[in-house]
Amino acid sequence: MDDATLPSATQIPRFSGIRTFMRLPYAPGIGTPRPDIVIAGIPFDTAASFRPGARFGPSAIRNISVLLRPSNQFHRINALERLRVVDAGDVLAVPGEIARTYANLEQRWAEFVSAGVVPVGLGGDHSVTLGELRAVAKAGGPVALVQFDSHSDTWDNYWGVRYTHGTGFRRACEEGLLDPAYSIQVGLRGSEYAPGDLDDTRELGFQVLLAQELSSMSPVEVADVIRARTAGRRVFLSFDIDFFDPSCAPGTGTPEVGGPTSAYGLQVVQRLTGIDFVGFDVVEVLPAHDPSAITALLGATLIFEFLALVAVRRAAAATRAN
Amino acid sequence: MDDATLPSATQIPRFSGIRTFMRLPYAPGIGTPRPDIVIAGIPFDTAASFRPGARFGPSAIRNISVLLRPSNQFHRINALERLRVVDAGDVLAVPGEIARTYANLEQRWAEFVSAGVVPVGLGGDHSVTLGELRAVAKAGGPVALVQFDSHSDTWDNYWGVRYTHGTGFRRACEEGLLDPAYSIQVGLRGSEYAPGDLDDTRELGFQVLLAQELSSMSPVEVADVIRARTAGRRVFLSFDIDFFDPSCAPGTGTPEVGGPTSAYGLQVVQRLTGIDFVGFDVVEVLPAHDPSAITALLGATLIFEFLALVAVRRAAAATRAN
Amino acid sequence: MDDATLPSATQIPRFSGIRTFMRLPYAPGIGTPRPDIVIAGIPFDTAASFRPGARFGPSAIRNISVLLRPSNQFHRINALERLRVVDAGDVLAVPGEIARTYANLEQRWAEFVSAGVVPVGLGGDHSVTLGELRAVAKAGGPVALVQFDSHSDTWDNYWGVRYTHGTGFRRACEEGLLDPAYSIQVGLRGSEYAPGDLDDTRELGFQVLLAQELSSMSPVEVADVIRARTAGRRVFLSFDIDFFDPSCAPGTGTPEVGGPTSAYGLQVVQRLTGIDFVGFDVVEVLPAHDPSAITALLGATLIFEFLALVAVRRAAAATRAN
Amino acid sequence: MDDATLPSATQIPRFSGIRTFMRLPYAPGIGTPRPDIVIAGIPFDTAASFRPGARFGPSAIRNISVLLRPSNQFHRINALERLRVVDAGDVLAVPGEIARTYANLEQRWAEFVSAGVVPVGLGGDHSVTLGELRAVAKAGGPVALVQFDSHSDTWDNYWGVRYTHGTGFRRACEEGLLDPAYSIQVGLRGSEYAPGDLDDTRELGFQVLLAQELSSMSPVEVADVIRARTAGRRVFLSFDIDFFDPSCAPGTGTPEVGGPTSAYGLQVVQRLTGIDFVGFDVVEVLPAHDPSAITALLGATLIFEFLALVAVRRAAAATRAN
Amino acid sequence: MDDATLPSATQIPRFSGIRTFMRLPYAPGIGTPRPDIVIAGIPFDTAASFRPGARFGPSAIRNISVLLRPSNQFHRINALERLRVVDAGDVLAVPGEIARTYANLEQRWAEFVSAGVVPVGLGGDHSVTLGELRAVAKAGGPVALVQFDSHSDTWDNYWGVRYTHGTGFRRACEEGLLDPAYSIQVGLRGSEYAPGDLDDTRELGFQVLLAQELSSMSPVEVADVIRARTAGRRVFLSFDIDFFDPSCAPGTGTPEVGGPTSAYGLQVVQRLTGIDFVGFDVVEVLPAHDPSAITALLGATLIFEFLALVAVRRAAAATRAN
Amino acid sequence: MDDATLPSATQIPRFSGIRTFMRLPYAPGIGTPRPDIVIAGIPFDTAASFRPGARFGPSAIRNISVLLRPSNQFHRINALERLRVVDAGDVLAVPGEIARTYANLEQRWAEFVSAGVVPVGLGGDHSVTLGELRAVAKAGGPVALVQFDSHSDTWDNYWGVRYTHGTGFRRACEEGLLDPAYSIQVGLRGSEYAPGDLDDTRELGFQVLLAQELSSMSPVEVADVIRARTAGRRVFLSFDIDFFDPSCAPGTGTPEVGGPTSAYGLQVVQRLTGIDFVGFDVVEVLPAHDPSAITALLGATLIFEFLALVAVRRAAAATRAN
Repeated sequence: MDDATLPSATQIPRFSGIRTFMRLPYAPGIGTPRPDIVIAGIPFDTAASFRPGARFGPSAIRNISVLLRPSNQFHRINALERLRVVDAGDVLAVPGEIARTYANLEQRWAEFVSAGVVPVGLGGDHSVTLGELRAVAKAGGPVALVQFDSHSDTWDNYWGVRYTHGTGFRRACEEGLLDPAYSIQVGLRGSEYAPGDLDDTRELGFQVLLAQELSSMSPVEVADVIRARTAGRRVFLSFDIDFFDPSCAPGTGTPEVGGPTSAYGLQVVQRLTGIDFVGFDVVEVLPAHDPSAITALLGATLIFEFLALVAVRRAAAATRAN
Repeated sequence: MDDATLPSATQIPRFSGIRTFMRLPYAPGIGTPRPDIVIAGIPFDTAASFRPGARFGPSAIRNISVLLRPSNQFHRINALERLRVVDAGDVLAVPGEIARTYANLEQRWAEFVSAGVVPVGLGGDHSVTLGELRAVAKAGGPVALVQFDSHSDTWDNYWGVRYTHGTGFRRACEEGLLDPAYSIQVGLRGSEYAPGDLDDTRELGFQVLLAQELSSMSPVEVADVIRARTAGRRVFLSFDIDFFDPSCAPGTGTPEVGGPTSAYGLQVVQRLTGIDFVGFDVVEVLPAHDPSAITALLGATLIFEFLALVAVRRAAAATRAN
Repeated sequence: MDDATLPSATQIPRFSGIRTFMRLPYAPGIGTPRPDIVIAGIPFDTAASFRPGARFGPSAIRNISVLLRPSNQFHRINALERLRVVDAGDVLAVPGEIARTYANLEQRWAEFVSAGVVPVGLGGDHSVTLGELRAVAKAGGPVALVQFDSHSDTWDNYWGVRYTHGTGFRRACEEGLLDPAYSIQVGLRGSEYAPGDLDDTRELGFQVLLAQELSSMSPVEVADVIRARTAGRRVFLSFDIDFFDPSCAPGTGTPEVGGPTSAYGLQVVQRLTGIDFVGFDVVEVLPAHDPSAITALLGATLIFEFLALVAVRRAAAATRAN
Repeated sequence: MDDATLPSATQIPRFSGIRTFMRLPYAPGIGTPRPDIVIAGIPFDTAASFRPGARFGPSAIRNISVLLRPSNQFHRINALERLRVVDAGDVLAVPGEIARTYANLEQRWAEFVSAGVVPVGLGGDHSVTLGELRAVAKAGGPVALVQFDSHSDTWDNYWGVRYTHGTGFRRACEEGLLDPAYSIQVGLRGSEYAPGDLDDTRELGFQVLLAQELSSMSPVEVADVIRARTAGRRVFLSFDIDFFDPSCAPGTGTPEVGGPTSAYGLQVVQRLTGIDFVGFDVVEVLPAHDPSAITALLGATLIFEFLALVAVRRAAAATRAN
Repeated sequence: MDDATLPSATQIPRFSGIRTFMRLPYAPGIGTPRPDIVIAGIPFDTAASFRPGARFGPSAIRNISVLLRPSNQFHRINALERLRVVDAGDVLAVPGEIARTYANLEQRWAEFVSAGVVPVGLGGDHSVTLGELRAVAKAGGPVALVQFDSHSDTWDNYWGVRYTHGTGFRRACEEGLLDPAYSIQVGLRGSEYAPGDLDDTRELGFQVLLAQELSSMSPVEVADVIRARTAGRRVFLSFDIDFFDPSCAPGTGTPEVGGPTSAYGLQVVQRLTGIDFVGFDVVEVLPAHDPSAITALLGATLIFEFLALVAVRRAAAATRAN
Repeated sequence: MDDATLPSATQIPRFSGIRTFMRLPYAPGIGTPRPDIVIAGIPFDTAASFRPGARFGPSAIRNISVLLRPSNQFHRINALERLRVVDAGDVLAVPGEIARTYANLEQRWAEFVSAGVVPVGLGGDHSVTLGELRAVAKAGGPVALVQFDSHSDTWDNYWGVRYTHGTGFRRACEEGLLDPAYSIQVGLRGSEYAPGDLDDTRELGFQVLLAQELSSMSPVEVADVIRARTAGRRVFLSFDIDFFDPSCAPGTGTPEVGGPTSAYGLQVVQRLTGIDFVGFDVVEVLPAHDPSAITALLGATLIFEFLALVAVRRAAAATRAN
């Protein structure tokens, strides 16, 4: 597993071997040669407001990720040949101690970022993104956020607690980690605590595409809106699996019915080419409510698509350079 | 729980407390102040023709309903601030004894109706609607029916039994409880006992929108058809959860593949403003086949949307009155 | 069960009786009167590359098939009154021995075909189709293939093994069983082993409709493409249940997210009238990952639609003959 | 399946073929040659007081019964070689109509009994035993009951309903179908409606072995008590699967913790040699709560043991006769 | 629900009504008349070291508790007629904030204790017991602990965190809440962090009965050891459901194979008569891993047995007084 | 993971990190320093006669094994401090190709054995043991077999196939890999293909302890019989998880009711000290039927106990040497 070669699924059956993400090499440190992308789990769920258990999200995503073949059909590219991608294992997440977890997470992410590696986080509940953003913003300034989610996660607090999975992006704004004018939230829906919760979000400066609006937009149109909004900035893409309808993603902590299908969401992501991504995560996969592992498979596939987006952009850059 | 204040989900976690619907006050009698809407379970499933178990529908819907926040994003209204809504517990349903169950149900519903309360029923199998309709029609004459369902439920009998979950609306017609000329069935599909079952339904006078027809209609168009059909009449909305595709509602007794998504169905319901609803129910939620509770969540959300429809109409009436 | 009359579901409850497909007569031999269609299970899953267990597909499909009523709403026809359809039980499939299984399968299928019976196979993993095709092609020459699938199943080998569920259609081409110029694969998507896997498929001569392309085509358009492609030839329809999104078909061995809904797929199949089908199968239903049996129900419904397609065509032929 | 030969599991894999009990011949009528034992399903669950769904018990038991090999290790006998055993399919059970169901059941059972066949019933809820007893007692007078159960099922009524799964044996006493002085209930435990429920049972004349008492008795001792109690009478053995601890039998409608293990219960049954059994049933298997099918397997194994008990007795009789 | 009368399960079906524990009256405050026993949920699971989700323990226990009938067969007593027992709903547990949760819990428990009510806690992870003990000990001094558990829960800390579900009883000793010389831990087993973990426990002063030792002791003997150890002191009984083998209690966070059966554990508890219990709890029921609800049923039954122990003791006291 | 230090579960939460067995170092080759014990998966299930899926056994066992703490309570030893134990990943198992799989397996095992490492296999179906035995016997001659199992696995063939999970030990005898006179099978039960199957086993020379016999033997007695039988020989211990009752091990391919509890089986294994074990395996864990992972946990715990047995023996040897 200290070898960068992915085992060939046509030689070594996909159900075989230790479960790193897609059976990629395990590399807890940055190491040499420097990877382009590092995938790391953040098994933290203390900040969940309803069902906990997303601490098992990383292992569930890794477990089913072995079903994925290396090459991307849409982009006609094998990202794993173009990029060095490794699985760094998990960040040390401390149940019940969000501040310590953030410190560990930020430090680990900072190592990745400072080495020029694009980190991909496997949540964990959505509170983890704040920790990732701290590292990313500290290194390069505020980023544009592209958030796929059924919830805005910009409430002020839950029962007096300011750091939860529903308050992270308000905190990120307060800490100056985001540039809301270039940020967008996609897929919001469901019940609110008070009429106008979304106005609060818009007051923070985010653009919002409600799930309802998606019904009359094609994936290409959504991707165009996102690209226009982010306007060439450094972009962090955070994907809460509850963006999807519960039929596609039953295994999550706070599901909201009435969401997009997996086909729709994937097609949006596939079109997000030409964006300078500096970080990704997939959060809120909760295996205890995912009896057929379809939620974890969807999460793994999103990461597979992220890898291709990075590879496509680098390939384009290389072409331009020639 | 004898207090009309809903516990704040940002103060008292949603997973906490006794499971009434949305943690609303429990009020088995009408009481004072008079509620606007009463939610009551009808845990009866003797009339199911295939899988029984919908008697556990009310508790499953209540159990997951606590995930809902009070305010409606689409209508920008907090119905629970505008209306007094209570959970009245369950009607006394007697397994194996449909006539006694109907008597209990009709009496309980009659109390609600005569007090000017809009009753919302949590099924139970679809036979329960007949009992609700008896009370509603006795009080105010035949009603227009808006039925979301994959089945017409207008067969004559099952194995010689005339009162079942598949025959209720034929009985309702025979008893003069419905005004078919203003009634509509939406979402029908699946196999039939004989070619022409649907003609029988149309002969009873119902308008029918097949699931297949919905494929080329927008939710707004469907809502417009429903509004036009019901034409200002007193309307009873009965929602059989098997209207939805089994991917969205696996937990039901007689699923039919090829149905609408949860997004589609919810968007139709959200547009049913301006209708004078005198009763609602959600039926056929069967928790034993709903491992991730997504069916129960969908049922609970439908009721949440019903509450908003009533609140919006009353708010509009109040505005007009001023 | 040696009587050709289907038990009436309004007389004998659907949950009652031995589980043949739709409670059809059990007839292991061809017998007299000769059936028009024979349904037979092929409980083989040795050739699966990821999750095995499709050997229990036939029993799961039969088990839930009893939920189906006899008459087809879309076509307004009761195929079981028009055609004699029987359940022949299962082919002798030998775990671990694909050659012997193919021999048994081909011989059994040859008996059906030579008697003028249309065989319908219940898989089993997708390797079984090769055995069916051998019998069908031996009797009447190469056939046009209509394959609904998320995978092309035209890889050359898996770990040196040439007969697997992912290589069957390449073998079928090599053996001259198919006429690729009249064949089409619908629904392909997901990750590949190398960029260009699909080009290989096209080099074999197949037309391909990617899942992505389906997003902008109506079911009617897809059916028209299929009809045009098959151009009056003898057609074998092979339906891999993983064509559907995992939300609709979680119970399968190699699910691919981002697929069509059950409504979409069924509507395509319903429009495939006017085609001379000489064989069908539904494969890759894996009950161990199908907790609510929605995958098996979808598979059973596909077969129900196949029966109608044959009945409609014969009815049309009879009408023309008069 | 009209052949009395059981398919050899070493020739035709056990997962293959139509699911009759143990893949025995299907014979809906008595037919010729006359069988020694007939197994028939009684898919009725209207009389359940808590979870319904035992109507799917017969199909679940048949489905897993194919795992059983023909020969009994304990008795060193292959009952299926010694006896002609067939599966007669299901009795016509009418949901919601217990009287009609009893009529159908009694008539079917009477045919078996009058032909000298020992009937084995697959429940269904425990109310079905009353119907079986009526046929058996009508033919030969009151029988001795051996009831394995966690509940006495001798309550007077549930919510005014006299025929339920909790009242059947009181009714059987009232109807003179049982000879309580030779009858015994084994395994009773759990909460009661009032102190002394068991005294009521004893007042009816039954001997009772509480689950608690079993803790200090060996299976051989229990079997000896049963044999002594029944004293050579004609015996009906009714086995409610909730006799077992829920760890062994989770799939049942009214589980009671604190029960015996499957090893214990099976060892008792295996020792019940030398008894003149005139009927058996296994009831209350509820597949919707049996995710790994261990309850259904336990039920199927009990029937397998019943077959051996009959075979052993006949073999002994034949030996004595020579 | 503000009426102290338990609905009769033979009049109102057990599956009917709002889910308080055993459908007891809901009484959030102490109220009048003063109850003898209050049952309250403590939905807290932040302190779990492996699988979280026990916050849903109270609702799962309440949900299945309705299956219980009021009267105790072993003790021949209906505790609910002898004692006033109410369900007080849930303590306000704050995810991620154990100190605040302890404060809320202690305050609520102190109200119960100061009013002379015996509190029964529904966990929640095992950390909650410390909060209960603080209230109980503050009111009456250190108590004797009877702990059924597979783990000693006396580790010093987890990852530097001192308040977790595995460290509570060490903290309780340090805080002087327990009198170890009269305390006993029963059922310990499984792997340790280091050889001698149990010596640490014994050094704290606890008596220990390993699971292995239970194998050669009868339930009566175990109860005698417990009674002897507690020697007339005020006793707090804390029952971690993982005391039981995972076959009996799969739904828990840190299961340990090789444990006692439910029959054994219940028989021990039933024999704990004559002890002055000042508090009880059942903890670590985790419904997300309890597909058939047998773990929750076992937890509910334990509480049912606790109620009887209190009732029996009071009845005996009353008899002695006369 | 190339470091031999096990992460401390009190420092790094057990739910964290890549899933090797117990988070042991991953070491695909023998490497330096030479390990004492190597754990390797054998994800093969082609040879299963009923439910396949044991190819996912290794990943399921690894996944839940992280719950285990390092130190053994019974033996008071931390085997992982005494021995160097690594996880070597999986053997290359080829679906459908048992001969190639045996070749790969034997070669890999031979490397371990020739280096003086004790190999521990994670099955996979029970056919894999034959491959392990070939390597072990080739290196050191025939071994004594201690087989815990509900089946003897000494049938001659299944459907003409000689290498299956039910025939391996007959093959092993034929190949001279075993010394039956020192071998023993423990736990046999269930139905047979013909009376006398067990006599066949005994004719092969094995001693047999039926499950039924275990009922009257203590774990210590069973261990003594095993120790006496193996009489100081080199011993291979093969543990088929279906030895246990399905309540303890539902996740397996051919369950047999009436088996021992997990407590009983573990206590036997714990007493197997003083034996010269040259190989172990745990087979037939089938996660698709193990919803709460209790079967996988039981399998992982058995391996944990094996490690201790080796450590205890070496410690004793070291002591004697001093």
